[in-house]
Amino acid sequence: MTAASVIEALRPRFGDRIATSHAIRDQHSRDMSRLPPCLPDAVVWPETEAEVQDILRQCHAAGVPVIPYGAGSSMEGHTIPVRNGITVNTSRMNRIREIAAEDLLAVVEPGVTRLQLNTDLRATGLTFPIDPGADASLGGMASTRGSGTMAVRYGTMRENVLALRVVLPDGRVIRTGSRARKSSTGYDLTHLIVGSEGTLGIITELTVRLHPVPEAVSAAICAFPSVRAAVEAVIETVQSGIPVARVEFLDQVAIANVNSHSGLTLPVAPTLLFEFHGSPAWVDEQARTVQDITESHQASAFRWSSEADERRVLWQARHDLYWATRAMRPGAAIYTGDICVPISRLADAIESARDDIDASSLPGQIIGHVGDGNFHTAYLFDPDNPEEVAEAERLAHRLAERALAAGGTVSGEHGIGAGKLGLMREEHGDAVDVMKAVKAALDPRGIMNPGKMGDAG
Amino acid sequence: MTAASVIEALRPRFGDRIATSHAIRDQHSRDMSRLPPCLPDAVVWPETEAEVQDILRQCHAAGVPVIPYGAGSSMEGHTIPVRNGITVNTSRMNRIREIAAEDLLAVVEPGVTRLQLNTDLRATGLTFPIDPGADASLGGMASTRGSGTMAVRYGTMRENVLALRVVLPDGRVIRTGSRARKSSTGYDLTHLIVGSEGTLGIITELTVRLHPVPEAVSAAICAFPSVRAAVEAVIETVQSGIPVARVEFLDQVAIANVNSHSGLTLPVAPTLLFEFHGSPAWVDEQARTVQDITESHQASAFRWSSEADERRVLWQARHDLYWATRAMRPGAAIYTGDICVPISRLADAIESARDDIDASSLPGQIIGHVGDGNFHTAYLFDPDNPEEVAEAERLAHRLAERALAAGGTVSGEHGIGAGKLGLMREEHGDAVDVMKAVKAALDPRGIMNPGKMGDAG
Repeated sequence: MTAASVIEALRPRFGDRIATSHAIRDQHSRDMSRLPPCLPDAVVWPETEAEVQDILRQCHAAGVPVIPYGAGSSMEGHTIPVRNGITVNTSRMNRIREIAAEDLLAVVEPGVTRLQLNTDLRATGLTFPIDPGADASLGGMASTRGSGTMAVRYGTMRENVLALRVVLPDGRVIRTGSRARKSSTGYDLTHLIVGSEGTLGIITELTVRLHPVPEAVSAAICAFPSVRAAVEAVIETVQSGIPVARVEFLDQVAIANVNSHSGLTLPVAPTLLFEFHGSPAWVDEQARTVQDITESHQASAFRWSSEADERRVLWQARHDLYWATRAMRPGAAIYTGDICVPISRLADAIESARDDIDASSLPGQIIGHVGDGNFHTAYLFDPDNPEEVAEAERLAHRLAERALAAGGTVSGEHGIGAGKLGLMREEHGDAVDVMKAVKAALDPRGIMNPGKMGDAG
Repeated sequence: MTAASVIEALRPRFGDRIATSHAIRDQHSRDMSRLPPCLPDAVVWPETEAEVQDILRQCHAAGVPVIPYGAGSSMEGHTIPVRNGITVNTSRMNRIREIAAEDLLAVVEPGVTRLQLNTDLRATGLTFPIDPGADASLGGMASTRGSGTMAVRYGTMRENVLALRVVLPDGRVIRTGSRARKSSTGYDLTHLIVGSEGTLGIITELTVRLHPVPEAVSAAICAFPSVRAAVEAVIETVQSGIPVARVEFLDQVAIANVNSHSGLTLPVAPTLLFEFHGSPAWVDEQARTVQDITESHQASAFRWSSEADERRVLWQARHDLYWATRAMRPGAAIYTGDICVPISRLADAIESARDDIDASSLPGQIIGHVGDGNFHTAYLFDPDNPEEVAEAERLAHRLAERALAAGGTVSGEHGIGAGKLGLMREEHGDAVDVMKAVKAALDPRGIMNPGKMGDAG
């Protein structure tokens, strides 16, 4: 059988919820990465788990590839149908099934986005703090093991998915995990699915942890004479047991860009932005303690506040960063690097990345979720200029190699997708063979997001 | 080939580090559970990863069972060689390879115990807080996904193992995870191994997270008119965002036992013990806030302190509990229940468990790590009286059934072992088939701890 026959078989059930127009297929041919698009044969929008089962049974029988698709905000080509097939768009599976406030959890369908969930949570005093930037779907965030600025305090999707329902490639449904906060029963299939990038099945329901909205929030900004001084302040903060909610790093180039774009007058220097959550007295104490720590590492211009308006001003540089980066080289594409290293190696890693950019023909900047040792490079390149593409790739590859040499990982939060397959064996060695054995056991016909993690690389 | 031929093949390399005497085999035939012993054919003490590889290659070629063994403190028969074979005792693999203070991690061999690690950490200002009670080996704790009183604040072994080295059944070695705090690269094999109870390979190295020793600690105790009032105080505490370090529940029977055993005069009522970690001002604020919360739930006799000596007095009931329980019925064995439920169902679950005990011929008590919804029953029974054995089993089974009906799990921290295999499919349904597929993919000859999770149940 072929994709065409699967499409014909699905059409009576899905009607106009299965599409083969070029426009629709084109929309689903790319993600937010730099990677070349590739068309699916069709796109289908299931609304129920039973419909997902039906799609997978058909594709399984026919050996036709299936590409799970959430909000399309992946950064490494996760949703690009590199071997064509049927893209399963989960955006109509967007019901919030339950908010269990006492248990600090929510049960949602995979197409629910994080902003949608947080809107529903407004009256509860609870929040879902994982914030990858984009308004990603929770199914997609789980599949990529996403995180963002709050991970240093609240963890990543790894720590915040309690349970899943998953349709396996052959159409069977399994539950993983439970509503209990911890368990010692059985292989941890929840964590096997989280981060598997749609290569083992399709998530149809997630039970995620919620957190209390902090009673008070304080924020701070300060500048440092060097990257090393900034990172050492972060290390001391973490070692002091201060449960910082966010600590974001912007290098001097990023600061110069925001100054220029937003008319700010921040000192052009490596800069840290902090956020603290807790009781009013406790967030004040955290800010004052961090002020002492940063000043002992030669920080200057330390400003902090617990007032919402003031906090917005302090964090404006971070909020305006996306557009400031775009404005750095109008019309250019952005190649985003994403590594995570042990924090003792972070200053070296950032400095080397900065040196690489300075020695390159491409402009670029560095920002980071530095409490976790995770940072991003942004190289601005002309996608129509093969030399610039090659240069961006060279820079990103050097970055990844350095992460591995430092005992880190080639992706802190963006994942492997189609873009980093070549690095899998460099990072994981023979463990890749075990991953392939797991993939073959769960998806023997290799229909789930083929050409990605688990069968390629 | 047989176990005898494997033993002969190993003897030249291991000399007196392979034993077949009845006394040694008998020592390795049981754990801390009530389950019947079963003799291994031999016990071998490797000292290096290469020796573990050698053992597994031989056993793999011969199809002889391998039982990984740490400190023998498992609670559900995990290390009982139910199909005989070679027990691999990792206690001589007890080197602490590295303490990386800046990165808040330690690299250890599997036989290192938690007390050993914490002794080595004394000068660093860091601690490994996971405390299952026994001085378990870290390899064993990881294999069982262990936790204990501190999990509500610091997580379980699930959250505290960053990376592993594992010898697979055929002797290959893989690394899982990295020294980075987070990663989005590849299937999460670390979490697949954590909790797999020695059925997928042998852990030869762990990279674990460390935490700062809190600057200050405060503790509190208070009594409640009912289980429900106590649990509601816990729910409100957690929802208020107070990062309580421990919150232990003792039911009125447990309190009466400690009063009687230790000469205390605590009110005989459902009781909570709290511990708070942070700065001096912050732990005081936490204690005062929790005092307000507990008093709004009719708590009485609230006492708290930040002084070490006073804290010891407040927590004496918890520390003396083990011997007080033993003294409840001298000579009796203890059948330990262990469930975890969503906290909204915790009061019901504890009350039902209490009712069951009260209606039973066996005495028993209930204690819990209630911030996580995890609690333990202790039924005191005569192991030589089949009726009492059956009654303890009936009580434990009802407890587990209720956990599942409440959306929870049949084991919060003790695991499946040989004791709870019959509950695996009740909890996980068809996901058990996926676990079996994973087991078959990684251990096709079925030599790793056979008759346990992954091939039985």
